[in-house]
Amino acid sequence: MSKKFVYAFSEGKAEMKGLLGGKGANLAEMTNIGLPVPPGFTITTEACKEFYVAGRQFPVGMEQEVEEKVAWLEQTLGKKFGDPNGPLLVSVRSGAVVSMPGMMDTVLNLGLNDQTVIGLAASSGNARWAYDCYRRFIQMFGNVVLDIEHHKFEGVLEDQKYKRNVQFDNKLTAEDWQEVIEKYKFIVRKETGKDFPQEPREQLYQAIYAVFNSWENDRAIIYRKIHKISDDLGTAVNVQAMVFGNMGDDCGTGVAFTRNPSTGEKLLYGEFLTNAQGEDVVAGIRTPQPIAKLAEEMPEVFQQFDRTCTLLENHYNDMQDIEFTIEKNKLWMLQTRNGKRTAQAAIRIAVEMVEEGIITKETAITRVDPAQLDQLLHRRIDPNAKIDAVAKGLPASPGSACGEVVFDADLAEKLNEQGHKVILVGTETTPDDIHGMVAAQGILTSRGGMTSHAAVVARGMGKPCVCGCEAIKIDHENRQFTIGTIVVKDREVISIDGSTGQVILGEVPMIEPELSKEFQRLLQWADEIRTLGVRANADNPEDATKSREFGAEGIGLTRTEHMFMALDRLPIVQKMILAADIEERAEALAQLLPMQEEDFYGILKAMDGLPVCIRLLDPPLHEFMPNAEELSVEITKLKLTGGSEAEIKHKEELLRKVRSLSEFNPMLGHRGCRLGITWPEVYAMQAQAIFQATARLVKEGYHVGPEVEIPLVIDVKELIYLRELVEKVAEEVKQATGVDFHYGVGTMIEVPRAALLADEIAERSEFITFGTNDLTQTALGFSRDDAEGKFLPPYIEKKILSDNPFIVLDRKGVGKLMQWAVDHARRVKPEISIGICGEHGGEPNSIEFCHSIGLTFVSCSPYRVPIARLAAAQAAVSNKGQSK
Amino acid sequence: MSKKFVYAFSEGKAEMKGLLGGKGANLAEMTNIGLPVPPGFTITTEACKEFYVAGRQFPVGMEQEVEEKVAWLEQTLGKKFGDPNGPLLVSVRSGAVVSMPGMMDTVLNLGLNDQTVIGLAASSGNARWAYDCYRRFIQMFGNVVLDIEHHKFEGVLEDQKYKRNVQFDNKLTAEDWQEVIEKYKFIVRKETGKDFPQEPREQLYQAIYAVFNSWENDRAIIYRKIHKISDDLGTAVNVQAMVFGNMGDDCGTGVAFTRNPSTGEKLLYGEFLTNAQGEDVVAGIRTPQPIAKLAEEMPEVFQQFDRTCTLLENHYNDMQDIEFTIEKNKLWMLQTRNGKRTAQAAIRIAVEMVEEGIITKETAITRVDPAQLDQLLHRRIDPNAKIDAVAKGLPASPGSACGEVVFDADLAEKLNEQGHKVILVGTETTPDDIHGMVAAQGILTSRGGMTSHAAVVARGMGKPCVCGCEAIKIDHENRQFTIGTIVVKDREVISIDGSTGQVILGEVPMIEPELSKEFQRLLQWADEIRTLGVRANADNPEDATKSREFGAEGIGLTRTEHMFMALDRLPIVQKMILAADIEERAEALAQLLPMQEEDFYGILKAMDGLPVCIRLLDPPLHEFMPNAEELSVEITKLKLTGGSEAEIKHKEELLRKVRSLSEFNPMLGHRGCRLGITWPEVYAMQAQAIFQATARLVKEGYHVGPEVEIPLVIDVKELIYLRELVEKVAEEVKQATGVDFHYGVGTMIEVPRAALLADEIAERSEFITFGTNDLTQTALGFSRDDAEGKFLPPYIEKKILSDNPFIVLDRKGVGKLMQWAVDHARRVKPEISIGICGEHGGEPNSIEFCHSIGLTFVSCSPYRVPIARLAAAQAAVSNKGQSK
Repeated sequence: MSKKFVYAFSEGKAEMKGLLGGKGANLAEMTNIGLPVPPGFTITTEACKEFYVAGRQFPVGMEQEVEEKVAWLEQTLGKKFGDPNGPLLVSVRSGAVVSMPGMMDTVLNLGLNDQTVIGLAASSGNARWAYDCYRRFIQMFGNVVLDIEHHKFEGVLEDQKYKRNVQFDNKLTAEDWQEVIEKYKFIVRKETGKDFPQEPREQLYQAIYAVFNSWENDRAIIYRKIHKISDDLGTAVNVQAMVFGNMGDDCGTGVAFTRNPSTGEKLLYGEFLTNAQGEDVVAGIRTPQPIAKLAEEMPEVFQQFDRTCTLLENHYNDMQDIEFTIEKNKLWMLQTRNGKRTAQAAIRIAVEMVEEGIITKETAITRVDPAQLDQLLHRRIDPNAKIDAVAKGLPASPGSACGEVVFDADLAEKLNEQGHKVILVGTETTPDDIHGMVAAQGILTSRGGMTSHAAVVARGMGKPCVCGCEAIKIDHENRQFTIGTIVVKDREVISIDGSTGQVILGEVPMIEPELSKEFQRLLQWADEIRTLGVRANADNPEDATKSREFGAEGIGLTRTEHMFMALDRLPIVQKMILAADIEERAEALAQLLPMQEEDFYGILKAMDGLPVCIRLLDPPLHEFMPNAEELSVEITKLKLTGGSEAEIKHKEELLRKVRSLSEFNPMLGHRGCRLGITWPEVYAMQAQAIFQATARLVKEGYHVGPEVEIPLVIDVKELIYLRELVEKVAEEVKQATGVDFHYGVGTMIEVPRAALLADEIAERSEFITFGTNDLTQTALGFSRDDAEGKFLPPYIEKKILSDNPFIVLDRKGVGKLMQWAVDHARRVKPEISIGICGEHGGEPNSIEFCHSIGLTFVSCSPYRVPIARLAAAQAAVSNKGQSK
Repeated sequence: MSKKFVYAFSEGKAEMKGLLGGKGANLAEMTNIGLPVPPGFTITTEACKEFYVAGRQFPVGMEQEVEEKVAWLEQTLGKKFGDPNGPLLVSVRSGAVVSMPGMMDTVLNLGLNDQTVIGLAASSGNARWAYDCYRRFIQMFGNVVLDIEHHKFEGVLEDQKYKRNVQFDNKLTAEDWQEVIEKYKFIVRKETGKDFPQEPREQLYQAIYAVFNSWENDRAIIYRKIHKISDDLGTAVNVQAMVFGNMGDDCGTGVAFTRNPSTGEKLLYGEFLTNAQGEDVVAGIRTPQPIAKLAEEMPEVFQQFDRTCTLLENHYNDMQDIEFTIEKNKLWMLQTRNGKRTAQAAIRIAVEMVEEGIITKETAITRVDPAQLDQLLHRRIDPNAKIDAVAKGLPASPGSACGEVVFDADLAEKLNEQGHKVILVGTETTPDDIHGMVAAQGILTSRGGMTSHAAVVARGMGKPCVCGCEAIKIDHENRQFTIGTIVVKDREVISIDGSTGQVILGEVPMIEPELSKEFQRLLQWADEIRTLGVRANADNPEDATKSREFGAEGIGLTRTEHMFMALDRLPIVQKMILAADIEERAEALAQLLPMQEEDFYGILKAMDGLPVCIRLLDPPLHEFMPNAEELSVEITKLKLTGGSEAEIKHKEELLRKVRSLSEFNPMLGHRGCRLGITWPEVYAMQAQAIFQATARLVKEGYHVGPEVEIPLVIDVKELIYLRELVEKVAEEVKQATGVDFHYGVGTMIEVPRAALLADEIAERSEFITFGTNDLTQTALGFSRDDAEGKFLPPYIEKKILSDNPFIVLDRKGVGKLMQWAVDHARRVKPEISIGICGEHGGEPNSIEFCHSIGLTFVSCSPYRVPIARLAAAQAAVSNKGQSK
């Protein structure tokens, strides 16, 4: 049986998204539930895939099927392709499986030519409109299909407006458009060496070809990469009879969300433009009207639209993003899809829909993308700060950002690579600016609405964005913008608040995020659903407190080395390292002891009643020492410039010691419990500090029981040896203080050998955590410091690795080791607590994996705790039936 | 049932070695086959283990059993402990499961005291002898049991000899010994605060206690560490009625081997001393007589002894090391055991015993320790060199060595650590010198025979040794020795030849080893028996040729980076690395191409008909670049001393590039196939060189088919990508040369992830080899360069690791990954060739593991190929039933 490549809308349904693309499936669904949808058909994603398999050739049989559908369309509408008396006009749009707004290409008004435009003008009695349609068609077709740069057409248009002294397109006359059309056709001839195609079928197939082709254009590839969309899905093509929102003031076009996509408020939200065609709204050419205005201007149409919106939301059980056109007071539905939304909106919508009885708690949990929550969990402008906003635009994507003004996406990317924080500023953004938006802290545009390209993309990325800030005048030539008399030059620092639309000069004070009522509600549900524990990594009492506020159920990792790095301690630490004998070292350690005790006292107190896992010293000692190369240069200088003998000698001695500590591969060197084995006195001091703090707190009535963690084991014997040391110290502290306390001793699995011997290790551990940062480095033989700047990017580029394994846990390699370790550890000790405390512990995909292999908890940075709680709940929902 | 802790010799047998120790089991065996063994009993190793479990306390019931056996002994011999008229005298000796010559302690003549010595003198009519026995007893007991330094007693003895103006002990009279005895007792009182114990039972239990204790003395611990003997075995104690070799000239004591332990010749070999006690021979106090002399001096005793030797060799089916004593013309057997032997002797004995029909080929294979073969496979003095030997001693352990003269074991160790080669020179060696012997290239002593401590230990270690070189006079005070008028000072260089006994001043020309006829025969049998292939690692035609001579069946690893390091190539390699663009790089690569082609041409030609695996470039690029610190210092100097601007600029540019190439952890950095992915042109050049060499050789009639190896893969996708590149180049070379040739593409598993994904990798590989050096580094998180000098020694010291994992393959960790990889690879491709080419490929224990997991081949350095052939055969014998 040969494949069916083309489906009329009436032949499809929502479930056929994979074949028909999102847009096509939803057009079919709306058609079938009786909504007013202009008739049309969809060419399948299957056809697109075969197109690529065949080396960018239409699959055999596809054109035949298209012809049949065109004939049916002509018959249904009583119009014919190329018929001057009633020309069939269609739109050709891409429609991928996963919505990719603005990334794929669209052609409207296809079917127009020098003949049919005359017919259209005559039959509609609206010559201005007919020629406007034609010039739009040439412009879009020229850009999208013939690959002529947009600005070449725009220049002509601007000229014409200048000549007529008008501000907006809609003031131009039919004659103006005819002039414009002639100039457009000239551009086409000049750029392509051929006349603009007059034959509608040629136009149609060229457009279909262009849509297929656009699946592999740079913008689409980058977008898919950023959003991790498979390159193999392909796009469908939708061919649909045109309806016109630009036939006069009883016409219009708009975009609306059934709830506010920024705040989540249950209120129809959107924008429309009268006398305009679809692309005008999203392209941000003119600033559109809020949807509420439609109720005033066309009350009946509005009511019908409002009812339709409710119907669609209930039909899909989710907030809808809807495109519509009004042609002479008749409403046409052009698209519906689940609407993109900010994290804040996603949460509120999910929670309210549960309250409205539309969805279950489980569904609500899955409606919020944990990765997106990041934007709610970062700093924003302190509301108590005296802010002097110099301008106000639309609050297009919430959150605040601060950075250097940059007008160019390439420069934004370059500066970002150099470590600068930048704000990308432009009249509007286009898909070509994506890389600059990725690099920027925030986006500021002078034109375009809440549904403009900049706004939609920024929200998707979770970047602060202020749109349509018409007060700012951008002067590209002088690389500056002005607000009244204020001049802001390239690289000057500004701040923006995407939640209020404010633009502020310079840096402003920011505050820490708090969790909204809805967010807390949602997380409460997440806590009810999830089986995976969530702890935080915290090295000081402040972080511990913060993590507790965010719902952490304990500390999964306290790194003690950060404490050693403090400015007042480093000299003592160096003294300890450089000590000539054990007495001298003991002296330095004695100085460090009370400091460490205070560190642990604060953290343990903050986590009263919850578990706290403290890892003993882990990094190689030379990290605490000066740089050898710098020392060498200093010595050379001193020698050549007659420096003092004593100083030279001292520095040379230091250099010798630094050299003796330096390592070829510090990552695989003398660190972790290897330090504890060779210098047991250091671990003994740390254990003493932990237990003295514990004893004090127990005496004060707190409930604390630290978990002492031995890092980087490769064999159970290290653990046995150091465990004995720790236990001895604990006994001594109990004796000395007269306080009894509980504690655990466990270990971190950070190298493959430890994972492979997890059964033996578990026998002697009260708990285990995976240090997946190091486990990834050793399992892959990848030094993170070296890989990320050098060979990792080409590895991801060439798709040798699907993700950066330091961000998304490598299930195939590292995951296999973890699975082995968990299985073997649980075999000898079924109830043993096993956690993860690498960065992966806060990354949703990795959390899903941790759930699936039955970990006890994930531990992540305090700010990612809510993300982890939600991701853990999602994992529980999607892995139903499996429980801890 | 309570344990039996004490066995009479008649109650034991050879098979009870684990319980009775080697000596005890063999004494029992000899007793039971009717040989003349003085009666006695053995306290079991079990008693020793319980002694340690109980905190160095005799186990309950042991003393009771000892008392019963003593009573039985008294009854059997008609003598009684402490009876002046017929005192029972016994020896107390340790007897571990594995023979540890000279490492454990012995007490003779126990039972003597101030009373019984008088009775003994009277009953024997030999007062001189009786007092000699008593002074020996005090001396040994004082040293071994009471821990009084040996030299304190020796000083008294030397004094007495000086006073009497005699050279040897045997010239001292009964009165002399009585004086000596009084002084000895004074020393005991002074050193211990107590009188020398007079009660024989107290002497006995103190001696037993001391033997048990000696299991944990430093010498024993070090010996066990060197010889990898478990610390858990414990030692047995043998209590045996004394017989005396020092009662006159019709008495004697000796040691003999049933075949020559140095050459393997089938001829009774050994030494004896008349009128001496056992320890005199092995301690090297007087230089003894060759055993053949016994035939002249006591022909009847000799004949009985000779028959007994033959009987014992046939009984044990192996060459025996026998101790005997002659008391008034009566032969007593005191010990037999399988004799230690040099590799050369082991081979000859094994081969001849097969020819004699005593053992099978399989047994012969297991009779040679592959690790010991090393000594046959190293350089020796060129027999054609004009050698001017300045002295000649006994050829105590074969092989030649050259190094600086050192008189002190500690200094030998220190200098060796600093990279010096040393020869340890001394009057004799003692167990306290073991660490110095380990550190030395060879050993030279002025006293002691072929069975002296120095000789036995050196043979065991496979170190060249010249013993009993009486021509040299050692002057410890001035740190020099003299040979006639020649003075050789500390740190001067000498050479020794342990096969001839020659001592030569300065360095001498050495030659490469060849395989003896017997060795080749044995290896032939090994080849028949083994199922594991043996290849060599070779980077040049010379090594390839050598490895072929040694029986390699192919090259398992050719490293191409060594070729890049050659002095004439390094500048071109640097040019390639520093190239500003791809054209410049192509130019440098074009220069390298013909050089690489010649490299491969030579190797492939040398291995005509055999497989050759060539690994593409593996190390990080900065290895080819200058050192950043040195460059920095140079630049600083140039700047401060007014160096030329141009030079400074050039060096700064170079420094920038070096810095950009430098890595935090080069081991885990931009190397291996990661270079091939980022700089495919380098791998393309290497592939072209390989294939052009191949095409030339095929044209010339050789049979070559190179295996191209992609290093350091972590994912099959790297392999797919680079395989395509290699195949493209192969096609181009075939086209260009018009020659068709075969080749394979495969990969090296060097990181855990690759092992875990071996099934996917195998699908796209014609072969796989394990790079276990790197796999060990990544699986353990151990940088070899950093570990071996820093934390690995304490890890082995503390027994966290049983061996250096870079020498003996870590079965628990790395082995598990290999096993997984082999299983999974063979699951998808049962016939795939899987080898190992890390250093472990030449280490017997690791080879046994490789056999057991079903590898196709091991690959090692050319000189280890014979070792690997033998070890592989032994693995096949010991894993019988399992085959490749």
